[in-house]
Amino acid sequence: MKKNSKVSDAIEGVKRGDLVSVSRALTLAADGQKEADEILRAFFKDLGRAQKIGLCGPPGVGKSSLSSRLISLYRKRNLKVGMLAVDPSSPISGGSFLGDRLRIQEHIGDTGVFIRSIASRGMVGGLSGTIFSQIHVLEAYGCDKILIETVGIGQDEVAIARAADTVVYVTTPQLGDEIQAMKAGVMEIGDLFVVNKADLEGKDKAVSDIRAALGLGQARSLSVQERLHHGGLDAGVLVETKEPRAWEPPVLAASARDGEGLEPLLESLDRHEKYLKETSEGRRRLKNQCREELSLYVSRRLYRDFLSKVSEKDIEDLVDHKMNLVDLASEILK
Amino acid sequence: MKKNSKVSDAIEGVKRGDLVSVSRALTLAADGQKEADEILRAFFKDLGRAQKIGLCGPPGVGKSSLSSRLISLYRKRNLKVGMLAVDPSSPISGGSFLGDRLRIQEHIGDTGVFIRSIASRGMVGGLSGTIFSQIHVLEAYGCDKILIETVGIGQDEVAIARAADTVVYVTTPQLGDEIQAMKAGVMEIGDLFVVNKADLEGKDKAVSDIRAALGLGQARSLSVQERLHHGGLDAGVLVETKEPRAWEPPVLAASARDGEGLEPLLESLDRHEKYLKETSEGRRRLKNQCREELSLYVSRRLYRDFLSKVSEKDIEDLVDHKMNLVDLASEILK
Repeated sequence: MKKNSKVSDAIEGVKRGDLVSVSRALTLAADGQKEADEILRAFFKDLGRAQKIGLCGPPGVGKSSLSSRLISLYRKRNLKVGMLAVDPSSPISGGSFLGDRLRIQEHIGDTGVFIRSIASRGMVGGLSGTIFSQIHVLEAYGCDKILIETVGIGQDEVAIARAADTVVYVTTPQLGDEIQAMKAGVMEIGDLFVVNKADLEGKDKAVSDIRAALGLGQARSLSVQERLHHGGLDAGVLVETKEPRAWEPPVLAASARDGEGLEPLLESLDRHEKYLKETSEGRRRLKNQCREELSLYVSRRLYRDFLSKVSEKDIEDLVDHKMNLVDLASEILK
Repeated sequence: MKKNSKVSDAIEGVKRGDLVSVSRALTLAADGQKEADEILRAFFKDLGRAQKIGLCGPPGVGKSSLSSRLISLYRKRNLKVGMLAVDPSSPISGGSFLGDRLRIQEHIGDTGVFIRSIASRGMVGGLSGTIFSQIHVLEAYGCDKILIETVGIGQDEVAIARAADTVVYVTTPQLGDEIQAMKAGVMEIGDLFVVNKADLEGKDKAVSDIRAALGLGQARSLSVQERLHHGGLDAGVLVETKEPRAWEPPVLAASARDGEGLEPLLESLDRHEKYLKETSEGRRRLKNQCREELSLYVSRRLYRDFLSKVSEKDIEDLVDHKMNLVDLASEILK
């Protein structure tokens, strides 16, 4: 492949530590087009350099403020920090909305911090596919810590868990029953739990609720998950048991606003990084990340190739019931 | 392909209107394996039969209660209703958690209602890919209305907007600034807006806030979307304008708990269905749904084929920096 000079300039710039080049490389990587392949090829070798910290949890729990605090603390230790903020996107305009600009203004002008807002587009592998490439760029720039934050729940959250080494699940004391129930579904992805806004009433109850749900502090009781599939007539309940884990997820109370409980959070994050390095879990996660990145990369490429083979006429035939989707797909795949 | 008798029994059963068969067909369709192809092949022709109504919005706004009310009202009109509730899933156990079981108990034993909970797994095209097949099953069963509800924000929500004919965005008067800000990103996908829990204070303000954000009632002012990409040094603001729409999204206040404001909601849903039928918009959406379903179906098949070609050794080589991801992918794709 002939090297594109715009791309190779960006690649060289990132290696030199030039911030504008980092910005360009991230944009190229996010596009997922041919140039993105060159970026990925150049920076894939930096895989595993940084600790990738994912921040999950419902909207409004203060993940942005918490991220901003973490960035400041890491900067005090002279660590280089990258942050990818996954924002809900408009599926029509493709635009990205950055809710909390404070977090950016606070760190403006500091070359040890790089913050980028990413739109989670509704395309196949859109989020995860390019997030891996963007992580490689930040690793190549020399980031020691990469924060990945999302406001999304569901697919977005799961995607982040697959890209991160350490997943922090953030919640607050005020969240109602509905969110508590919902949380159970994503609980398994958390390596650390933070009850933020700990200045509010109900902090202790929230902490103990989470500990109970995780089966902590109760002589390793079972984590019971009910699965109810209802088919109009039949309803079954499946009870699953969970293996004891070598890593016991800490449940911490903190207040990003008042700056409380942040040092213990940082210590837990360090402890988890150490745990990953010293056990086979770290390598297992890296392998899973590679597997995921590879699959997404390949399906993105195949998807791109495939789309160019579908004509307007094909789609008309589907809508007009002249053609069956399975048959059309088989024909195109031949 | 040799017909599998279990599959053809399910297909025949759905056509006869047998609920147990619908349940089986949905499970087969959701698996996305070979049997799913037979289901899709049999029922694709029912595409476009029902009005597919997507319900989006943050967790805790009462989408489940609203769905349950809508189902009751449609049942009074003697319409057959299907519902697919997309729940956040555990990426590890693959389990699905159904938060609000009341909605099921209320309609239990009614053969005119079919409710299925779907886990939004973190796989490529997982949600959207199989949701289309499941919709076809419900259409073949004779459903007039299909409600698709999600607690997910971000990818899940966008996926639903791509499968639905009519998107209802649900919110409440109490939502704070953070959620208000977030909402702007997904606002464009809503065809109808409902401020639920209208018994709470702030209903009128919420309605007028949404109307303002949509550019309604202000001589069609611009919908301004700010996009802020920060690259450490540069920060730019992009202002986009929006074309006037033929359909003006109604913003309604309702209370699912007290049963208020539901008839106007039903009328708006009917009006939107009529609008889609009488303008080119309906066909345009159907075509987009086909395009999406086709792409997801194909990439799911390709992904499946691809995964079988990746060995453990390949992944080890990636983690050990012996191989570059782009090169490995190219080799496998050859």
